[in-house]
Amino acid sequence: MPRQVKPPRGVPGFRFAGVACGIKESGRKDLALIVSDGPAAAAAIFTRNRIKSPSVTAGMQHVRGGLLQAVVVNSGNANACTGPGGLRDSRAMCTETARHLGIDAQRVLPSSTGIIGVPLPMDKIARGIADAAASLSPDGLQEAVEAIMTTDNGPKTAAASCRIGGRTVHVAGIAKGAGMIAPNMATMLCYVLTDAAVAPAALRPMLRRAADGTFHAITVDGDTSTNDTVLCMANGVAGNPRISRGGEGEEALERALTRVMKELALKVVADGEGTTKLVEIRVDGARTAGTARKVAFTVANSKLVKTAFFGQDPNIGRFMMAIGNAGVPVVEETIDIALGGVKVVRRGLAVGTRETAAAKVMQRPSFTVRISLGMGDARTSVWTSDLGHEYIRINSDYRT
Amino acid sequence: MPRQVKPPRGVPGFRFAGVACGIKESGRKDLALIVSDGPAAAAAIFTRNRIKSPSVTAGMQHVRGGLLQAVVVNSGNANACTGPGGLRDSRAMCTETARHLGIDAQRVLPSSTGIIGVPLPMDKIARGIADAAASLSPDGLQEAVEAIMTTDNGPKTAAASCRIGGRTVHVAGIAKGAGMIAPNMATMLCYVLTDAAVAPAALRPMLRRAADGTFHAITVDGDTSTNDTVLCMANGVAGNPRISRGGEGEEALERALTRVMKELALKVVADGEGTTKLVEIRVDGARTAGTARKVAFTVANSKLVKTAFFGQDPNIGRFMMAIGNAGVPVVEETIDIALGGVKVVRRGLAVGTRETAAAKVMQRPSFTVRISLGMGDARTSVWTSDLGHEYIRINSDYRT
Repeated sequence: MPRQVKPPRGVPGFRFAGVACGIKESGRKDLALIVSDGPAAAAAIFTRNRIKSPSVTAGMQHVRGGLLQAVVVNSGNANACTGPGGLRDSRAMCTETARHLGIDAQRVLPSSTGIIGVPLPMDKIARGIADAAASLSPDGLQEAVEAIMTTDNGPKTAAASCRIGGRTVHVAGIAKGAGMIAPNMATMLCYVLTDAAVAPAALRPMLRRAADGTFHAITVDGDTSTNDTVLCMANGVAGNPRISRGGEGEEALERALTRVMKELALKVVADGEGTTKLVEIRVDGARTAGTARKVAFTVANSKLVKTAFFGQDPNIGRFMMAIGNAGVPVVEETIDIALGGVKVVRRGLAVGTRETAAAKVMQRPSFTVRISLGMGDARTSVWTSDLGHEYIRINSDYRT
Repeated sequence: MPRQVKPPRGVPGFRFAGVACGIKESGRKDLALIVSDGPAAAAAIFTRNRIKSPSVTAGMQHVRGGLLQAVVVNSGNANACTGPGGLRDSRAMCTETARHLGIDAQRVLPSSTGIIGVPLPMDKIARGIADAAASLSPDGLQEAVEAIMTTDNGPKTAAASCRIGGRTVHVAGIAKGAGMIAPNMATMLCYVLTDAAVAPAALRPMLRRAADGTFHAITVDGDTSTNDTVLCMANGVAGNPRISRGGEGEEALERALTRVMKELALKVVADGEGTTKLVEIRVDGARTAGTARKVAFTVANSKLVKTAFFGQDPNIGRFMMAIGNAGVPVVEETIDIALGGVKVVRRGLAVGTRETAAAKVMQRPSFTVRISLGMGDARTSVWTSDLGHEYIRINSDYRT
């Protein structure tokens, strides 16, 4: 895991707040605001679940124009499966935020995370929005990240910077999510903020590409929440020449976005409740990127593979079984598998002598399973966790 | 679960044996023979895993002609990922069995179940085949089922009979499998034997249809072994007029086969190691049978749903999340969900008052989750288990 020496406090041109308004019974922070000084280019990726929170529905509509100025997030209640009232509540969160900031409600993106099937406590949320609007600060990123947490063990932040057109551009991100494994549906939320000047039409494909190798390449339990959101806002305060699609600075900014999103994505997997291992499943030698991805995710989601990670057991049968289950053509005789640098399968056959060395690799908190299909040149990596007792304990508890 | 008053001892015209030949270190029975007095019509269904045991490859070839006379099964070693030597060993098992019985090796179907990646101990297996051939008995079904077990908690048998053309026709089946959840890959094997006279061309589609609602409708962990096999042999000893495709007696025999296979399939789920609940996921109101199946299996395989079963927690958010994740169109506002008879979701909204009643239903060892999509007339049922601590304990242990 990349370590972060100093957590970021903010990004030029953005202000932040995180307050407690009583949605969480624990009294912890549960309402966050992120506000740009002016309208910012915006792009977002939302859950692919067919059942979506009305917050997601409202957010999809608001981001469509490519400009946003604020994000309002409540934790403790997902506002999902709440019927027509749920959409009214999400819109009311935007209206209330816009009123305090003196901006258009269409420029506000709402997010909710927490328990499903219970209407939002709108009186508390209205008070929270008022409190948060009154306490906005350029240094308040840490307060905001605390207020979006649910079952996370700790706040997840990441930052990067780069030079574009002679100017320093800053990127910072915050994320929450224990990989959809919490009793109350631990939605994955991520907000990436930058002072870069960039056209919305350029930002959208950049975010999509950055997500492919980061948030679209992680799994904890294969379940996807009704509320997942990855949002990027770029307010242009850095003063670089505005980046257009395919134009100068695009590559540098995309690299910085990807770096921040990868660090956050791996933190989400590593922080998954019950997780003791962070494992990269690297598949190469595939015919297409799509088949590489299918094999990688089938291995990454197999309960038998994940319990073997927990048990630190180099059980090659489970890898072979999962590879064969991916629903894509594979040739047993051309498959190689290595754990860390230790080859455990060569041309489809167990390399029996390496079992002790392989078991040692699996004792590490983080390692790579490399699967070479020997059929082509396509490759991919996905990141997964182990499946242990703590996952069961957390997820079988009553919701009380 | 249907209870079985008296376990079947045999089927007219078949002989059975189960012996210990030393493949299992425990000294338990590990080699079974099933032999028909004459050639029997045969049909089989094999694993869809792209990586197949050579036993499966050999079995596929031998059953193609539609006639078999014997089955030889070893437990303790799956003969999978064993390279070209593995196929030679599977063929040798057939040759050896055929030699002792004085039949053609092409009329023998081999099966293996157990650890992956280790060559079969052929000397032990040869001795086992000789012993078994010498101890064949018409009453030996129980010995045979014991010899195919790996991590099963107990032998799984079922029987039924029906009248066809004025004759009594017997059906008996044995199965093993703890749902692919054991450290050494608990393959699912099932052998269904009948004395009905039936054309191979009629038997094949009957077995396929019977499997659709039984062995193709169960899941423990979503993983599929390299060795799964469901075989049906019909030796004609009952003397009924030979059943042709679509002809008289087809329906009665198919019903009896289905009854036996369903009892065995549910026993496999209920016996899955670590299982404390047997849950039917019934989906109706779907547009097509295919979408019903996708929704049912997505719910049945969701780790969040299965841990909620273990925790006896009527967490409607998890059901809704899983339904939305099935990759088929659903309309939140038309979804109803009931646990046992207790409605917990009506038109997409939580029926909050029923939570105590629903939790009571979930305390039962077996119950039904009924999901009504409200979009059409198609329906399906699948059966699944819960996901608890015992599953983790078993599957994270070393293979020693």
